[in-house]
Amino acid sequence: MMIDLNSDLGESFGHYTLGNDEKLIPLITSVNAACGFHGGDPLIMMKTVDLVKRTGAGIGAHPGFDDLQGFGRRNVNLSRDELYACVLYQIGALDAFVRAAGLRLAHVKPHGAMYNMAAKNKDMAMAICSAVKDYDPGLIMLAQESGLLYRTAKEMGLPAAAEVFADRAYEEDGTLVARSKPGAMITDPKEALARVIRMIKEGKVTAITGKDIPIKADSVCVHGDGEHALAFIEEIRNACTAEGIELKTLRVMFH
Amino acid sequence: MMIDLNSDLGESFGHYTLGNDEKLIPLITSVNAACGFHGGDPLIMMKTVDLVKRTGAGIGAHPGFDDLQGFGRRNVNLSRDELYACVLYQIGALDAFVRAAGLRLAHVKPHGAMYNMAAKNKDMAMAICSAVKDYDPGLIMLAQESGLLYRTAKEMGLPAAAEVFADRAYEEDGTLVARSKPGAMITDPKEALARVIRMIKEGKVTAITGKDIPIKADSVCVHGDGEHALAFIEEIRNACTAEGIELKTLRVMFH
Amino acid sequence: MMIDLNSDLGESFGHYTLGNDEKLIPLITSVNAACGFHGGDPLIMMKTVDLVKRTGAGIGAHPGFDDLQGFGRRNVNLSRDELYACVLYQIGALDAFVRAAGLRLAHVKPHGAMYNMAAKNKDMAMAICSAVKDYDPGLIMLAQESGLLYRTAKEMGLPAAAEVFADRAYEEDGTLVARSKPGAMITDPKEALARVIRMIKEGKVTAITGKDIPIKADSVCVHGDGEHALAFIEEIRNACTAEGIELKTLRVMFH
Amino acid sequence: MMIDLNSDLGESFGHYTLGNDEKLIPLITSVNAACGFHGGDPLIMMKTVDLVKRTGAGIGAHPGFDDLQGFGRRNVNLSRDELYACVLYQIGALDAFVRAAGLRLAHVKPHGAMYNMAAKNKDMAMAICSAVKDYDPGLIMLAQESGLLYRTAKEMGLPAAAEVFADRAYEEDGTLVARSKPGAMITDPKEALARVIRMIKEGKVTAITGKDIPIKADSVCVHGDGEHALAFIEEIRNACTAEGIELKTLRVMFH
Repeated sequence: MMIDLNSDLGESFGHYTLGNDEKLIPLITSVNAACGFHGGDPLIMMKTVDLVKRTGAGIGAHPGFDDLQGFGRRNVNLSRDELYACVLYQIGALDAFVRAAGLRLAHVKPHGAMYNMAAKNKDMAMAICSAVKDYDPGLIMLAQESGLLYRTAKEMGLPAAAEVFADRAYEEDGTLVARSKPGAMITDPKEALARVIRMIKEGKVTAITGKDIPIKADSVCVHGDGEHALAFIEEIRNACTAEGIELKTLRVMFH
Repeated sequence: MMIDLNSDLGESFGHYTLGNDEKLIPLITSVNAACGFHGGDPLIMMKTVDLVKRTGAGIGAHPGFDDLQGFGRRNVNLSRDELYACVLYQIGALDAFVRAAGLRLAHVKPHGAMYNMAAKNKDMAMAICSAVKDYDPGLIMLAQESGLLYRTAKEMGLPAAAEVFADRAYEEDGTLVARSKPGAMITDPKEALARVIRMIKEGKVTAITGKDIPIKADSVCVHGDGEHALAFIEEIRNACTAEGIELKTLRVMFH
Repeated sequence: MMIDLNSDLGESFGHYTLGNDEKLIPLITSVNAACGFHGGDPLIMMKTVDLVKRTGAGIGAHPGFDDLQGFGRRNVNLSRDELYACVLYQIGALDAFVRAAGLRLAHVKPHGAMYNMAAKNKDMAMAICSAVKDYDPGLIMLAQESGLLYRTAKEMGLPAAAEVFADRAYEEDGTLVARSKPGAMITDPKEALARVIRMIKEGKVTAITGKDIPIKADSVCVHGDGEHALAFIEEIRNACTAEGIELKTLRVMFH
Repeated sequence: MMIDLNSDLGESFGHYTLGNDEKLIPLITSVNAACGFHGGDPLIMMKTVDLVKRTGAGIGAHPGFDDLQGFGRRNVNLSRDELYACVLYQIGALDAFVRAAGLRLAHVKPHGAMYNMAAKNKDMAMAICSAVKDYDPGLIMLAQESGLLYRTAKEMGLPAAAEVFADRAYEEDGTLVARSKPGAMITDPKEALARVIRMIKEGKVTAITGKDIPIKADSVCVHGDGEHALAFIEEIRNACTAEGIELKTLRVMFH
C-alpha cells in the first residue's frame, strides 16, 4: 500500500508571504507549485523549486485563473481556447524552473475555482487535460476521482491520481460537502486521521449521510497553515508507517 | 553568405491588436514572440506559434519587463535573481506552446528596455544569459555585437547571433544613435537597403560620423508596421537573392 | 423632445490604441470613460477628459471588472462588498481627472459583463447603485429600463436614464436579443435609424417577435468603430434635427 | 508644541495580509493609505477608511508605482504626464472611499521608490505636486524637508508637512543614511526616543558624522510591524505627553 501527501505551495507573491513552505515541504511527497497567476511570482517559483530539490519531493504545476486579487478562487468564464492556453502557459513557466534545477515535472493539479469548475464541466476538463497532454503525455493529473477532471484525464490516456481530503466531509456521490453546509469540515483530528487511513486501506469513507461509499485515494491533500497543521501531517505520516502504508511521490506510484 | 530576418511579433493583448503578424511571418526567417509580460497573452502566444508552424520560420522567446502599460519600454530595476527568474519564466511559458506544436525553440531576444539596459550592464547580461543557458545551452542569444548581452553570451558558451538594424544610424562604437538625436533614423529606403547589403557582404557600415566601422550581421531586425514596411522587407529579400545572400533561420546558421 | 447620444470611450491602454475617440467625441453628448480596469489607464483617462473638455459633452464613469485581458466581457463573481468597492474605486479615479479639469461628473454606466450581469442580479445592482449613491447621489445611472440596474437606481432615489440601442433587436420583455441568435443585430442603417426615431418619438419599438412594445429612450448608445459608424451618427443627428428632437447631455435632461 | 504620528497602512492585497492595521490605527494621528498600485485593493481601501473613521485619525493618500510585485520599491521611469496621471488616479480612487465615509482627505505621501526618487528629481516632484494641487490645493504634502517634494510643494503653494524618522540616521544634509551603510538604523529604542523628542522640541538631530543639524519635524513616521513596534509607539506617545507635546493630526496643524 502506498500514499502520496500533496500540498499547494509557493503561493507567496512579491512582498507578501503566505504559508509555511520551508517547514511543510520536508513532510510531504508532492508539491503543487503556484505558477504566477493566482499566486506565486517568478522569484517565488525559483525558490519553491529550490526547496523541493533539497528534499526529494515530487513537483507539479498548480495553475489557476489569472486573478491574484481573488487568489484564483473566483469563477471566471474562459473560452476553451483561453483555458487551454492559460494552463499550457503556466505549466511551461513552472517547468522552466524545474528543468533549470535538473528536476522533472511530475504532475498537474489545477487550483481553486479552476479545479472546482472543471470537476463539473466537461469542456473545461477537456481543455485542461489537452494542455497537459500536449505538453507531456507522461504528466499525472491530480484530481478527485468523482469529478470530470480525473475522468477526462483517464479517457484521454493521461495518468490520473485520485486526491482525497482529510478534513472534508463527502456527499454520497463522492463530491465534497460545500463549505457553507454544516458538517462540511472534519474538525476532530482523530476522526480525520481515522478517515484517511480507512480511505487508503479500505477504499471507503462514511459520507455525511452516514452511508459508506467507495473512494479512491492515491494522494491526500494537506495544508501547512493553521495552528496544528504540521503536527497533523506528522500524525498522518506516523499512522501510515504504523499501518504499513508507504509514502511515495506520484511519479514513483504511476511510472 | 547567409542572413536571418527577425521581427518582434505576437505583441497583441486580449482585445487589443498590434502589428501585422499574419502578413509579416511568411516574409521573415525568425520570429521573436512576446511572452505575456510586455505584450502577448497565452492565447496570442498560441496563435503566434501556430502561424510560425505554418511557415517554417524559426521561433524565439522575446521576454520583456512585466510592464504591459509601458510596453516593456520603461527601465525597471530588478535584482539579479528577479531578472533571472523573470526571463526563465517567460522562456518556459513560450516554449510550452512551441513544444505543444511539435516545434523547437531556437533563440532568445530580450525586449525593449531589458535589451537596452542589458547591453550596458554586465550583471543584467549575466542574469539573462544564465537563465537562457540553464534552460537550454543550445538556445541562441540574439543581440547586437557591440553590447554586453552578445559578449556575455559568448563568454558563457552560448551561441550568439549578431543583430543589425536597417533603419538606424550607428555611433563609431557600434551602438545605435539615440532616437532623440538628429539623423538617428535612416529614412531613405534605398540607403537603408544599401547599408544592409553592405553590412552583410562587407561587414562594414558608415557611422553617423562618416567613418566606416566593422559590424557583424547575422540577422536583420525588420518591422511589419508602417506604410511601406512589408514592401521594404520584400526589397531586402530581393536584394539578398540578387547578391547571392541566402536567407536562413538562426538555428540553421548556428547548428 | 430630447435625446442623449452616449458612447464608451477611453478604452485604449498603454501602447494599445482602440477606437476613434477624437472624431467621435464631438458627435455625441455623453462620454462613458473607461476607468483603468477593463480598459483605459491613468494617462488615457487624462487625455479622454481633456478631449471631453474641449467639446462640452457630458462625462460619466464606465467602470468594469478588473480584467484587461477579457476587456471586462468575462463574467466574474465578486462578493457584494468587492463589487461595491470595485465600482467606488473606479468612479473616484475617473472623477479625479474630471475635477482636475474643472468639470463635473454626470453619470455612471457599468461596462460589459458587469452591466449585463447586474441587469439580472439584484444584489449586484444594489452594490453598484450603493457605490454610486454613496459617492454622489446626484449621479445619473445610465442603463436599460428593462433591467435591474435601472430599476434599483430608481428605487434607491438615484436619477436613472434609459438607454436604447440602435443596432440591436429587442425581446418582448425589453431585453436585448442575445448576439448568438439570428436577427440580433439591426444591420440596415435605414431601419436602425427609423427604429431610433420611433423609440424617441413614440416610446415604442417592434420586438423580434413582431409585436410592438413600449420602450423608454433617454439616451442612444452609439459606437465609433466600424466603417460607417461616424456617418451613421451623423445621420442620427440629422434625423433628430429634422424631427425636432434636441440633442442634450444627461445632466441637462435630468437636473 | 505639536506633532503628528503617521504610518503607511492598508497595504494588504486580496488574500495577502500585511501589517497590523487594527492595532496601529488607534495609536497614530495620520494614516497614509495605499491606493491599489503598490499595495491595497478596493476592498482593503474600504476597510482601511472604515478603521480610520472609528478612530478619528487623519487620512491621506499613499500613492505608489504600479508595481505590486516590487511593492512600489523598484525605481520606474515614468514620463511627467504618466507620473501626474498615476498620482491623480490614486488620489481620486482613495478619496472615493473617504468621501463615501463622510470624511475628508487630509494629505498625500508618495510611497517607496516614488517618494525617494521625487526627493531628488525636480520634474518628478513637480508632476506629483501638480496632481495634488489640481485635485485639491488644500491637501497637505507629507515629505522630508530636505527633499524636493517638500520644497516643490511649498513653491507651488501647497501646505507641506515635514516628516522625520525615529529609527533612521541622517546625513549632514538632512537626507537619510542609505540602508546599506553601517549605522543607518537607530536600533536602540531609548536613543530613538530621545532623538525624536529632540527633533520636535529643539528642531535638531545629530547627524551620522556627529554634527548637530537643524531638522523640521511636523510628523514622525512610525511602523506597526516588528516585535516591539506598537510598544515603541506607546513610548513616543507617553514621552510626548510628559514633554508637553500635543499629538495632532496634520489637518489640525495646517488649517
